[in-house]
Order: sequence, then structure tokens, then C-alpha cells
Amino acid sequence: MDTRRVKILATGKYMPKRKVTSEEIDRLLGVPEGWVYKKTDVSVRYFIDDETSSYMGAEAAKEAMKSAGLHPKDINCIVYASGTAEQPIPCTAALVQKALGPEWHGIPSFDINSTCLSFLAGLDVMSYLVEAGRYGKLLLVSAEIASTGLNWGDKESAALFGDGAAAVIVGKTEEGGGSRIIRTAFKTYANGARLSEIRGGGTRLHAGQFSELTREHYLFRMDGQAIFRMAYKLLPDFVSSLLAGAGMRMDDFRLVIPHQGSAMAMRLIRKKLGIREDQLMYITPDHGNTIAASIPMGLHEAIRRGRINRGDRILLLGTSAGLSLGGMILEY
Amino acid sequence: MDTRRVKILATGKYMPKRKVTSEEIDRLLGVPEGWVYKKTDVSVRYFIDDETSSYMGAEAAKEAMKSAGLHPKDINCIVYASGTAEQPIPCTAALVQKALGPEWHGIPSFDINSTCLSFLAGLDVMSYLVEAGRYGKLLLVSAEIASTGLNWGDKESAALFGDGAAAVIVGKTEEGGGSRIIRTAFKTYANGARLSEIRGGGTRLHAGQFSELTREHYLFRMDGQAIFRMAYKLLPDFVSSLLAGAGMRMDDFRLVIPHQGSAMAMRLIRKKLGIREDQLMYITPDHGNTIAASIPMGLHEAIRRGRINRGDRILLLGTSAGLSLGGMILEY
Repeated sequence: MDTRRVKILATGKYMPKRKVTSEEIDRLLGVPEGWVYKKTDVSVRYFIDDETSSYMGAEAAKEAMKSAGLHPKDINCIVYASGTAEQPIPCTAALVQKALGPEWHGIPSFDINSTCLSFLAGLDVMSYLVEAGRYGKLLLVSAEIASTGLNWGDKESAALFGDGAAAVIVGKTEEGGGSRIIRTAFKTYANGARLSEIRGGGTRLHAGQFSELTREHYLFRMDGQAIFRMAYKLLPDFVSSLLAGAGMRMDDFRLVIPHQGSAMAMRLIRKKLGIREDQLMYITPDHGNTIAASIPMGLHEAIRRGRINRGDRILLLGTSAGLSLGGMILEY
Repeated sequence: MDTRRVKILATGKYMPKRKVTSEEIDRLLGVPEGWVYKKTDVSVRYFIDDETSSYMGAEAAKEAMKSAGLHPKDINCIVYASGTAEQPIPCTAALVQKALGPEWHGIPSFDINSTCLSFLAGLDVMSYLVEAGRYGKLLLVSAEIASTGLNWGDKESAALFGDGAAAVIVGKTEEGGGSRIIRTAFKTYANGARLSEIRGGGTRLHAGQFSELTREHYLFRMDGQAIFRMAYKLLPDFVSSLLAGAGMRMDDFRLVIPHQGSAMAMRLIRKKLGIREDQLMYITPDHGNTIAASIPMGLHEAIRRGRINRGDRILLLGTSAGLSLGGMILEY
């Protein structure tokens, strides 16, 4: 029921050309120099210059494909697992396929969206199809552009986010191999559905109603305090139950790769959950919060920096708008 | 690999309060009376009055829940499988959960999007999790609002679409029961990615750039002729291969429930694929094209009108923006 014999074959990452320092954000927000870094721990984030989500996703995918030594014909499905979409129609996975080139045509492509937990939801759901042999090799792409939707009047959220993409290729574990997903858990508490949102741009408040007066409705808004209180209350039981179901303790993990939310929230939650500092993958300072790309970027960096090796137990963990909680235990 | 022992337990439907006749659309478009009906075969479609996607989805879900005799605690996952979203953040599944009420809190909720094939993609993907016992009972919701994104300057597409919602509850087939998904196929050809689109409202062209000059970018645009040519060319081989994989012929199906695209296209494709007229579930005249809600609405009406019974073989089939093709053989 829970264990799936799937393996993360390779990862890739793409960061936009435009590197944005905290000092630049200080000036944009009109705050004293040092305020943004002190408040967020984000020294550098990247904002798109001329890049699109599909372009960034395709670049990250190409890096992962190269690393895995695979060709387009080896891939059986493309899932775009992101909290933002390039355009309302078609799904962004089709646009990623288009950006990858004609040799990818025909490969089933669709989107899975659980906001900041989209990558985790995509990996969780699709792992059943990989294990069943329906899709031998799966390309998961998370490409996020936060910068176009930020509200520069809301200093705390504007200071935190960054753009970028990550891609992960997943396949069935080879005979005798140990890689597997051991257990996953998801919960959505819709009483928190309005704690972080972009209200306008969908079917409820169409772009056509945009004006200087309604501008704020089309930008990101979050009640960071309320989200933190809800997550702080719900996460301990959520994680205990996930670990207990797998017969594990927090000490059993080589690395915990969390969604890179606010630095302060991560610090407090780390302590509350009993995660040692050396167990935590922390890429906030040079990436910012990159929405759903945050967890696969953390995974990519953990592999690249040698912080995890084959056979290591890792825990992917996060919260998202919804309000959702998600966690996955896997053996890399 | 292909067969999944899952069962459609119940369905529900919600049509918006505002009934819109073809004569009303004739007047809106400034065409002679009778033009819209003659062109589209759509006599009546429904447009939202004050309804939202989440409200309509929740109403359809309540009908399905009542029909199945289930309570919120029986449902383990909510998937919003639609081509349109209520708002950019959070995912619409969380908003559907919110509309359903507090007794639903905690149930994992996320979105799957393959435009008009979202329901088929959601049912296909999630059936693996239902069969594996990960989610005992799944609520799939397709709730679509086309009317806010229509371009009244593009007569052919504006005449065709309607709003509405459908919900389907899926569970594992009981011991000895025959219900199952026998085989599914999906293909996405991104060379057709720009044949039907709404370009503005996502991260590429933010709502903030909306103006009277850019208005068209934020509205639905399709090249119906090119889509038809592509679908007409690709569908025969796609369907042949799907049927051959299951060892079946078109005559083996009690009913084919297609995505309700344009009437002319459906007629030509029906003949090309060798689908008898009495095999086709055709709800276009009193629903219009309701995007991804179209297939589950067809399923709901087929059950309600007694056109399928337990044990009957049916084929769900459609195309979507992407350009994607999707088909599913199941024993109801």
C-alpha cells in the first residue's frame, strides 16, 4: 500500500539570469539596508528576465536528462508540478513539452497542482504509475515565477520569494536495488484556504476586471502569522503519525529537505519537530522561497553537494496554501 | 499494469441557475436567429449567475455523496480535475473542500489539469492509488466556468461553450465484482499547444498587463479548423491502438462517452472511428461544451437515463488543448 519501488534517477535545476540581492530588494521596498536579509535570511534570489516557466522547466529537464544519460524516447510522461501556471490554457506541461522540442511530441503531459507542495503531490501520485509499469520513466518539472505576482506593498512576502525551476526523473527501482518511497502523508485543512492566496486571474475574478483599484486582488497576499500558527499546531502530530506509520524516529534520517518557507518559521518548526541542524537541507539564503520548485531544488542541491548518497533515508516535508501539509519518507 | 479494479460508485451534476438559449446567443453575437443552433447544435447552455467553480463543484459532489450514501469521513481524497481554476492560489480543490464544509477538513485535496481531458487524466492517475488502497474512496470534481473567458468577437467558440460541474466518487471494486478500468491511453502533441489557448492571466502575461488593447490575450481563442484536422488525423490510430491493446473492437462497447466538442467534429469523427449513432452519448444540445466537466456529465446522464448498466463496457474519449488525446476503456 505505501511502499513503492521507485528511484530518483536524476535531477536538474535552472535559475533565472537576473540575480537579485537583498540590498536591491531593500531599495525596492524602501527599507533600511539590511532589513530584507535580517527579516528573511535570503541573501540572493533570482527573478526572471525574459524567461518563461516552460523555458525554465525545459532547461532544468535537459540538465536532468543529461545527468541520467536518457533520450526523449525513454520518457513516458511529463508532469508539470507547480503552484503557478504559464497561462490559463493549455496546461503548462504541454508548453514545457513544446519548449523541449519536437522529439518529445506524443508524450502524455499534464499538470498537478497543490501550490507549494505540487512537487511532493506529483511524485507521490505518479510513483504508483511508475511502480505499476504504466509509465516506465517519468519527468517531473516544477518551474515557478513568483516575481510577477508579488505585492511590493506587502514587504514580508515580497522579500521572501524567488523564481526558478527544478526537474526530477523517476523510474522503477532495478532488480535488487534499495531505492523506494516508504510512506507519504497529505492533509488539507480548507479552514486555512484564504490564508495565502492570489484571488484574481481565474474564473472568479477574471483578468478583465483588473484596474488600479483592484490591483491588489491579482497579487499574492499571505497572513504569515496565521499560517505559522496553524502549521506549528498541526505539524507535530502530522509528522509523528507519518514516522510512526513507518516505524521510524526523526534521528533515522540522514537529511530532511523542507519546503523553504520563511527562515524564522523553519527554525522554530525544526526545533519543535526535533530535527538537528545538521539534518536540515537549507537553501533559503541563496534561492529564496521558490514555491513548489523549492523541495526538488533542495533535493538537487543535496545530491550535488554530496549531502545524500544512495541508500540514505530522507524526509521531504512542507506546507502549502490550502492549507496543506505533506511529507514523504524515501530511501534515495 | 493496465487493469485496475476500481468502480464508479456514484455521480452528481450541477448546472448553473442561468439558462441561456441559442436565441439569446444569436442576439449577443448579432447574428440572424437560428445561426448559433445551426452552427453548434447547442440549443441550451448554462452560464453562471453568482456561482463559483467551488460552489458548483461542491453541489455536484453533494449529489454524488447522497447517491452513494456516503459521509465526508468516508472520503480519503478530493481531486479537482478541471481545465479552469477559480483563482491562481490556492488550488481549487481546497476551495471545493471549503465549500463542502468543516466536516471535510483534513482530506488531502489537489488539482489535476489536462484542460478538457482533466477528468479522464484524474480518473486514470488516481485509479492506481485507489486500487493500491492508498485512498479508499476518491471524490473527483470537474467544475468549469467557460463564460467569463469567452471572446464574443470569436463567434464560433463563443457559441459553443457552457458552464457547469460534475462529480464522481470512485472506490475499489468489491470482492467478486466486475467493475474495472481495462485500459487507458494518453498522448500530447505540443506542436498543437497554441491551437487553443488563453494566453493571459498566468505568469507569462500577468493580469496586471490587462487593458482594452490587450483584452483579447485574456480570452479564449481557438483555431477550430486546425484542431479538427489534427484530431481527425491522429485519432484513428490512437483509438485503434487503444482497442487493439485490450483485444476489442468498437462494436464491443455499449456506449461511447466523448468530450462534447463541436457537433460537426463529433459527427465526422464518429463516422471515421466507426461508432454507431446509438452507441454515442450526445449531450451537446442541452449542455454545450463544458470543458472537462463534459465527460463526467455524459457519464452522469448515461447512468441517470439508463443507457448503461453495471457490467457494460464503455469508452470515454476526447481531445483537449495541448493538443492531447485521451481514451479509457472501462467496465461500469
